[in-house]
This record gives sequence, C-alpha cells and structure tokens, in this order.
Amino acid sequence: MSLQNKRTQNISRTELPTRLAQARGDEILDVLIRNIQILDVITGDTYPSAVAIGGEYIVGVGLDYQDAKAKRVIDGGGAFITPGFIDGHLHIESSMMSPFEFEAATLPLGTTTAICDPHEITNVLGARGFEWFLRCAELTKQNLFVQMSSCVPALPGFETTGSDFTLSEMKHLKDHPAVLGLAEMMNFPGVINADNDVLDKVEAFSDLNLDGHAPLLRGKALNAYLLAGIQNCHETVTIEEGREKLQKGMGLIIREGSVAKNLKTLAPLVSDFSSPQCLLCTDDRNPFEIAHEGHINYIIKELINTHKVPVHVAYRLATYSAAKHFGLKRLGLVAPGKKADLVLLSDLSQVKIKDVMIGGRFVSELHLHDEVPAKLKASNPPMENTIKRSALQESDLNYPVSNGLYNVIEIVQNEIITKHLKCHFDGASFDQDDILYMANIERYGQNLPPGLGFVKGTGLKSGALASSVAHDSHNIMVIGTNLSDMCVAVNEIIRTGGGFVVADKGQVVASVELPIAGLLSLQSAEEIKAGIEKLKVAFKNQGVVLEEPFIQMAFLALPVIPTLKLTDKGLVDVTQFKFIPLEATV
Amino acid sequence: MSLQNKRTQNISRTELPTRLAQARGDEILDVLIRNIQILDVITGDTYPSAVAIGGEYIVGVGLDYQDAKAKRVIDGGGAFITPGFIDGHLHIESSMMSPFEFEAATLPLGTTTAICDPHEITNVLGARGFEWFLRCAELTKQNLFVQMSSCVPALPGFETTGSDFTLSEMKHLKDHPAVLGLAEMMNFPGVINADNDVLDKVEAFSDLNLDGHAPLLRGKALNAYLLAGIQNCHETVTIEEGREKLQKGMGLIIREGSVAKNLKTLAPLVSDFSSPQCLLCTDDRNPFEIAHEGHINYIIKELINTHKVPVHVAYRLATYSAAKHFGLKRLGLVAPGKKADLVLLSDLSQVKIKDVMIGGRFVSELHLHDEVPAKLKASNPPMENTIKRSALQESDLNYPVSNGLYNVIEIVQNEIITKHLKCHFDGASFDQDDILYMANIERYGQNLPPGLGFVKGTGLKSGALASSVAHDSHNIMVIGTNLSDMCVAVNEIIRTGGGFVVADKGQVVASVELPIAGLLSLQSAEEIKAGIEKLKVAFKNQGVVLEEPFIQMAFLALPVIPTLKLTDKGLVDVTQFKFIPLEATV
Repeated sequence: MSLQNKRTQNISRTELPTRLAQARGDEILDVLIRNIQILDVITGDTYPSAVAIGGEYIVGVGLDYQDAKAKRVIDGGGAFITPGFIDGHLHIESSMMSPFEFEAATLPLGTTTAICDPHEITNVLGARGFEWFLRCAELTKQNLFVQMSSCVPALPGFETTGSDFTLSEMKHLKDHPAVLGLAEMMNFPGVINADNDVLDKVEAFSDLNLDGHAPLLRGKALNAYLLAGIQNCHETVTIEEGREKLQKGMGLIIREGSVAKNLKTLAPLVSDFSSPQCLLCTDDRNPFEIAHEGHINYIIKELINTHKVPVHVAYRLATYSAAKHFGLKRLGLVAPGKKADLVLLSDLSQVKIKDVMIGGRFVSELHLHDEVPAKLKASNPPMENTIKRSALQESDLNYPVSNGLYNVIEIVQNEIITKHLKCHFDGASFDQDDILYMANIERYGQNLPPGLGFVKGTGLKSGALASSVAHDSHNIMVIGTNLSDMCVAVNEIIRTGGGFVVADKGQVVASVELPIAGLLSLQSAEEIKAGIEKLKVAFKNQGVVLEEPFIQMAFLALPVIPTLKLTDKGLVDVTQFKFIPLEATV
Repeated sequence: MSLQNKRTQNISRTELPTRLAQARGDEILDVLIRNIQILDVITGDTYPSAVAIGGEYIVGVGLDYQDAKAKRVIDGGGAFITPGFIDGHLHIESSMMSPFEFEAATLPLGTTTAICDPHEITNVLGARGFEWFLRCAELTKQNLFVQMSSCVPALPGFETTGSDFTLSEMKHLKDHPAVLGLAEMMNFPGVINADNDVLDKVEAFSDLNLDGHAPLLRGKALNAYLLAGIQNCHETVTIEEGREKLQKGMGLIIREGSVAKNLKTLAPLVSDFSSPQCLLCTDDRNPFEIAHEGHINYIIKELINTHKVPVHVAYRLATYSAAKHFGLKRLGLVAPGKKADLVLLSDLSQVKIKDVMIGGRFVSELHLHDEVPAKLKASNPPMENTIKRSALQESDLNYPVSNGLYNVIEIVQNEIITKHLKCHFDGASFDQDDILYMANIERYGQNLPPGLGFVKGTGLKSGALASSVAHDSHNIMVIGTNLSDMCVAVNEIIRTGGGFVVADKGQVVASVELPIAGLLSLQSAEEIKAGIEKLKVAFKNQGVVLEEPFIQMAFLALPVIPTLKLTDKGLVDVTQFKFIPLEATV
C-alpha cells in the first residue's frame, strides 16, 4: 500500500489521453475560467492567467488558454484564484455535524480538503463508527480523508470506553482510499518509551503518514518521539516549543479551534522560509464559530490581518504546505494535473470568497444542503441509542463534605490544558471562589459510580451544564452548583440519547440533541447554530464566563492533555499518568 | 510498492527501541558531536547545538545532549554542521568513474546522496548494465539511488543501440530498494501526445517518483507533460522557462554540469519562498571539474558567492528541498530520526568542509579509495569489449564533394543544445570558417555505414577527436579536419574497447581508455584526471577552443535535445523528430 492508491492521487489511465488532448488544445475544454489572477503559492507572485479544466482536473494554466474553446467559459472578472484550502487535522465530530452537513457548511468557505480523525465516534462505537466515516468519505465531494484513529481508548485503563479499536481492525481498513495514515498518536509516552503495542501501530502505518500529538513535549523526549517517525504536531502551545519542533523537522500544524487557539502564539514563527513546514488546522471547531467566523478561511484572514503574515505565505500554509506535507500529489496548487479545487476571491487579504470549485464544479451550483438527507441515508449511519445508563440519583454523587484540602481542575480560557490547584474546603465553601462540582459518568451500560471532581473557572452561578461530548471516551460530563440540577441535566441526556443540556432550578432550560453516538446532530448547520445560540443565552444567564463552556468541559475529560483531568474512573494527573484522589496532600 | 521500502527510509523495528533509549538518555550514545553550530535549513537560523548519534541515525539534536555519555565524543570546535548534500540528478558515467571511485571522489565533498540514472551503460548493455548499478548501490556507503532509465533507446528508430530496456525488465527491477522512481522521461513528445507505450511507463512508476526532462518546453505542451504526473526538470535553459516551470508546480532542478551550466541563468529564481521547489544537480560532470571545482559543494559556493543567494537558502536547495521532493523521509535534515549524513564546515559561505559523516561514520576514516578494487570486484562489473566494429576505412566516410548547400550543426559553448546552420560548400571550402567533418559510427556489431555530418564551433585546426561516449547510444563519434586522422582516432577506440582519442598526422597523440562499456575507466579519479589533462594539452595544441570538446561532442549525438543532432543513422532535426539529409534545402 502506498499513498498513490489514495483518493485524489491519480488521473486514471483511461481518462489521461483525453485530459492530455485538452491540455494540448486538441480537444474542447470542459470549463475555462478566464480573466483571473492566480496567487502563485510557489513563487509568491500574482499574475493574470486562465485556468483550463477537463473533468475534475486542471489540465492547463496560463494565458495560452484564454481564447481556448470550452463547453463553458467563465469570466472571472479579474478575481483572484488560489488552491482550495486544506484543514490539516480536525475532528468533524466537534462541529456536531455529519460529514455531509460539515461539507455543506465548510466547502463554501474554501475548505476543499479535510483530513479528519473520527476518534470521537470510534471511541463510542469502535470500528463501526470509523467505518461510517469511510462510507461518508466515498459520498462527499469535499476531499475527506480519514486518518486511522490511533488511540482508542486514549489512555487504556483510565476510562470506560464504548469500544476499542484494535490494530487488526486498523490494518484491515488501512487500504481504504480515504486513509492517509495514522491519526494523532496521542500516546507519546508509549512511543518514547518503546511500548511494543504502540510501536506496532507506528510501524504498521509507516508507509503512509504518521500524525503526532505532543503538547509541551520538548528536549530529549521530543527527539525520541520524532525518531520513531512521527511527522507533525497540532498541539503546540508556546513559541519556544513551536520553534524547537520546527528545528527538529516536525511539521508545525497551527491550530485555531473553538477553544484551543494557538495562532497568535505561533504566527511569529511563520516566514517565507519556514512556510513549507507550517500548516493550518481547526482540530475542534463548533458550528457557531464556523458560521460566524469561518473555517480555514478565517485562519488565513487572521494570519494576514491580525498577525501580519504576508498574503502569499498565509495562503501557502493552507494549500501547498499541507499538500506537500501529506504527500497529496494532486492537491494544493493551481497547476496542471492538480484537482480543480479552487477558491475565487474578490479580495485576497480579506479572504472575500466569490465562489469555490471542487473537482471542476462550482460549489454554488451543487445544492450541498439539499443533498444531505439522501447522502446521510446512503451512508447508513449508526443510529442506535449509545447512552446506556439508568437515571442518575443525587446519592450517586457521593462527595466528601469534610473539612480538608482538595485537588481542583482550573480551566484556562481558550486552552485545552488545565491547571492543577489545591484548595481548602471548610465543609461549607472553598477558600477560592468559582469552584463547582464536576462529575464524569460512565454511559456504556456498566452503571459504574461516577468520577468526581471540583472545577474552577466556569463562572456558573446557578444550575448545571451536562454533555455527552467528553473527549475521548464520551462519557457524560456535568458541572453544577448543586447536585439536584446536575441530575436533571444528566438525566435529560440519558433520556434523549445524548447532547448538551443547561438545567436550572430543577428544569431543563436549553438543550441540543446529538442522537448519532451522542456526538452528532441530525439537524442542519443552521438549526444546530440556532440551538447553540439558545444554549449560550441560557448559560450566560446563569453566569458562565467561558465563551465555549461545552467544548472546554469536553476537554476536561481528556487524560492525554495536561495537567489535571477527570475521567469516569476519577481524577488523572496527566503529568504522571496516574489516578489521584479528590483529597489533596500538601 | 511504495517509497517506504526504499533504501534509507526506515529504522528497523528491532533497532528502534535501542535508538529510542539513546534519544531518551537511557543508553549510551555511539557518537556525540558537541560544540557545533547547526545551520537549520527549516528556520534558516544558526545556533549552538550537539548531535547525538546511534548507529546510522541521529537520535537527538540539542544542547540537552552536550554532556551525554557516548562511546565516542567529538569536539566540533565550534564548526558548522549541515545535512549531507543531495545530487538530484546525475549520470555517474559522465565522471568516467565506477560508482565506487565516484563515491570516493564525491563523498568527501559532502555529496552523501546521489540520485543517478545509469542510462548510458543501459544503452550499451541493457538490463545487464542497469543491474550492475543496482549491485553497486548495495555496496556504496554513499546513498546511491538508481532511477529506472526510462528512454533506452532515447529515440527508438533513430539510432542503433546496444540494447533496449523493456517495460517488463523495468517492472522486474522496480522493487529494488535503490530505485526511487522513473528516470528522466526524455520522450516528452510521447507523454504529451499520449503515446501508449510511454504512458505505460509513466503509469508503472506513478507510485514512486517521475523525473522529467523538458528543455525549452513551455505553454500548452508543458501543461500536458506535467498533467501526466512528471514532477521535475533539470534541463531548464532560460529564466522565463524556469519561472513558468516553477509556477506550474514543477520541481526546478538547477544543473551545473561540465557543459550544461544553468546556475547563472536560474539563480535569480531562487528565494526564501521558492526554495522548497528548487533543487541542485550535476547531471554530467567530468572528473577534472569534480577534482578542481568540486561537486554539489561547488554549486552551493557559487550560489552564495557569485549569485548572492543567502547561505541558508543555498544549503536548503542541496538538502531539505531535495529530500522532500523525492520523498526521502530520513534524509536532508540535522534532526532526530534522520540518517547521520552530515557535513562539518569551518566556513559556511565558502563551503570549507572539515569532514563529512555518512551513516554515523566519518568519511575521513573510511579508506574509500583503498576499498575501490575490492568493491568493484564484488559488484561483478560487465567487462566484455563492447566495441564490436571492424576497422574504419576512409572510403566508409563517403562525403559528398559537390557544390551545394549543407546542413551544419553549430556547437553552443557550455550548452547541450545546438544551432542548425545551412552553409554553402563550393567543392573545396564552406562559406563559413571552422566547419569540419563529423561522423557517428555504429559500434554494436552490425557494421552499418556511418552517419555523416558537418560541425561548426570546435576550433580544431588539425587532426581528429574520437570518442565512444556519445549520448545516449554511445556509438563512436568523431570530428576531424581530414578523413585519415578520423580513421586513426576511431580505429584506436575500436582497438582499445572504448575511450577518448586525439589523433594528428596519422598518429594517436593522447588517449583515455574506458574499458567498461566504452564509458567507464578502471583507473582512479586521479589517474583519469591526469589522462584528461594530457588530452586537454593535445586538443588545445590542435586548436580546439571548447573547454570540454569530448563532452560537447557526446551531446551532438543526443536526438532528444534540440536542435540538430547526428546519430549513426544520420542527421536528426530535433524540432521535428525526423531525419534530414546532409544536403540542405533553402
């Protein structure tokens, strides 16, 4: 197996003679886009040109074609044209949309290629969840690549998970044309310490791409991680760390998600010279921000306008750099032989998109939204209720009430790392304000007792928030000012098969249902956005100061990101990868 | 088959745990190079560091290792360290050396990787010649990659060749770990016009690299050539052509050979931003220039000092850019997991090399020259006499002597393209000076009549030059002022089994013998160089004004490079790919 056999890598031999004839000018073009200016992400120049298209491919570029015969001639009106944008790493599940709704939402924003890791749904449903994404990738027009989720569960033994995803299952699915490699290898200690099972996975995918995940990893440990062949990281938090990763040959995938926002920190590392080693990704981006800010187009705009990265460099990161990094031979350039994935813009620095072309067809003419239900049905999504839990009782939340020192997770706004506090409780209140109850409740039918914790930093003054999205095992996460509202919120999630819930004074105040695996909605992006807006009103009314409390809450469960996290089995000290009790020692 | 299975791509699974332990600091290093400064070809920075080596690999980089335990500690004395240099395209045969002598000559100059196309010897000996190079690649310490010669013969039907090299033979050898892809696809008209046999070859190697060769190709034809998947070109002659090739996504392999020198023309295209798409190669470089000027190290020095390319950019072209272009995952960086192919320098801009490391061993300690005879024997080189021709008679050179207009090849100094002149002959002399006889004489045992031509531009005033090196079929090429000396020179080549000969007044004046396939010497680089120096004295005494008449003469036979060429079957108009008579029409 090699990358060559993957989606978008080939022009078929039967098709090639026709495309060559079109390139030579001996056969009529399918589409000619004339009167445009190419932003050339190789030389950095912008110049007048024409783009000749045959089938899904660019067959020729240049003014030689401006008067060529074509079945359809588009006058670009002097617009700019760039390659389609590539999201180097994301979990579509974070958009709460199916891949089809995601496609309909992000293709018009220029994201023609998404390299996703469906490890959320795979944690819930195992290979059945992963395989659904592969079926989706066969139906999307957006180039959807599905990296092989490498760490399901993320940290074996530390959480109850819906399913695991074994190496033999992974090998069985590896040859699918949408699989470009191994998804983020979050078990960096396993790689560094030569854990046999972990190295087996790395070895099995070493002929494809090996994606990394190494927050704060530096020095000798980073050297070891890279030595094994891991090729990139999207978890870089500091500039020194980013510089070291670049220097050591790692692809720096700069992330601007809904919570984890690293653009401001890492933008100073981006230059003409370093640009081939820098990529962009969204990782986890919610439908609200996709709708209001955008997707990769937003990151490009921010790079140019807020972080003063030159226009040609910003666009390179989103196109050529990503295509080169992942070995995508026919993506990332406006050049002959590349797939006709193009963005037409009236303004480059403001990223004002006039239209997007995917495989030679204008997205504005594709009716992507209308096609979602039919595609969803054709993809045969897993529809069973995955919330297998009897109703939560207040007595299940068996908090200690004695005077003492307790371990507390402190949320860092717009970061997915947390701080580890030790706070004193006098039997009635803590010595710091804004410390609430938090629980992580197993939902895979074992009816285990909840993991209990304390959390600081939400601002919540009344009621509770609960969610079935809690990385990566997606047990039920709940934060509340009182145990009663916590039960109301959790039980609503159990009743509906998953979602986000805001409860207050014994009632459900707002909710968004996520019936597919407790992760994804069946609604349109617009409907999801409307639901989230109602959630926002509700949680802000109740005092929440975080912009994205549900996304931040989801990461409070993830035991592979520092510092202190809560799984259904208890508090995990991620600096040591071990459980610690709620009660702290000095 | 994928690139992953190729030489240098992998650290074996059995070795990896040891290397990881060394990276972590848990096991003693094999070699530690401390007190050095890395020129980082990703960020462009230079900074103090240490390089930790385990086996053939860099296991770690950084000051974290400066006091690490190692079996051997080298104090770099503040020297600079860069990745080893990569020659992106060359024919080792042009050095007249065996791959082992070539390795001994060029590894100390920093060329740790050579991506060669042995199409000279393959034209003479077919698969047997190619397979010898593969055997050599198994014995060299230099990373010798052997691209699959794609056009043997270069232009079927236009020349008599020693052997052809069929697609089934090519497929049979494709899996060898030294084969990175298809060598320069010189039959660009075949690609562009969708010739079935040519597209079969391209398709068969599309999972590896597809090297190009497209002198002066522009516009629609260039678009078509690239559409087929061809990824680079080392034949770019003008800056406009180079810019267009870059813009269209082609890898620009900048060549500085012994005759074809494109550095001055193309250097202005190299910038921080374009650098990942620009590579370096020597293509055809003779032992004289390797000894006097250097190899890739010379090109770097020229880039910096003559063409004012920034230091970090010049080194990137020779290292990271090339490794990325060819998908060589473990080459081209001083970074963890990369092969310990390193150049230590006392001066970066002057490329003053202190020592070179290949796979963790210092070249200065390798005794490469002493090992050549044993390696040569172990490689089982093809030693039969390949000059199968009975002695040439003056009567074989059956020139027309009548008054008329004749087609004349004009040599362009330091270019391998030629000009097509039409000159008048009055029965005694031409209307222009410096026009001589030239013949191309079949040497593969068929005793066919010679191809006859006229050539302008050598300056030769007396005697004749003959050679068994004549691209790509390597029939015998001879240029002379008189038919008698032409026969003397050619018959010396037939007698000795191949080489270069200067004859004058009925005598051989100087010669270099090339017994392997009529292309390669059994002598050392020093001895070859001494022989060439004697040749130089001889041909200069006889009036030759060209610096490299034998190399330029060799290209006068190559019917895939414009404009007018001479094969053993006659004059070829390369603009039309057809034979034309010696007698010209107005």
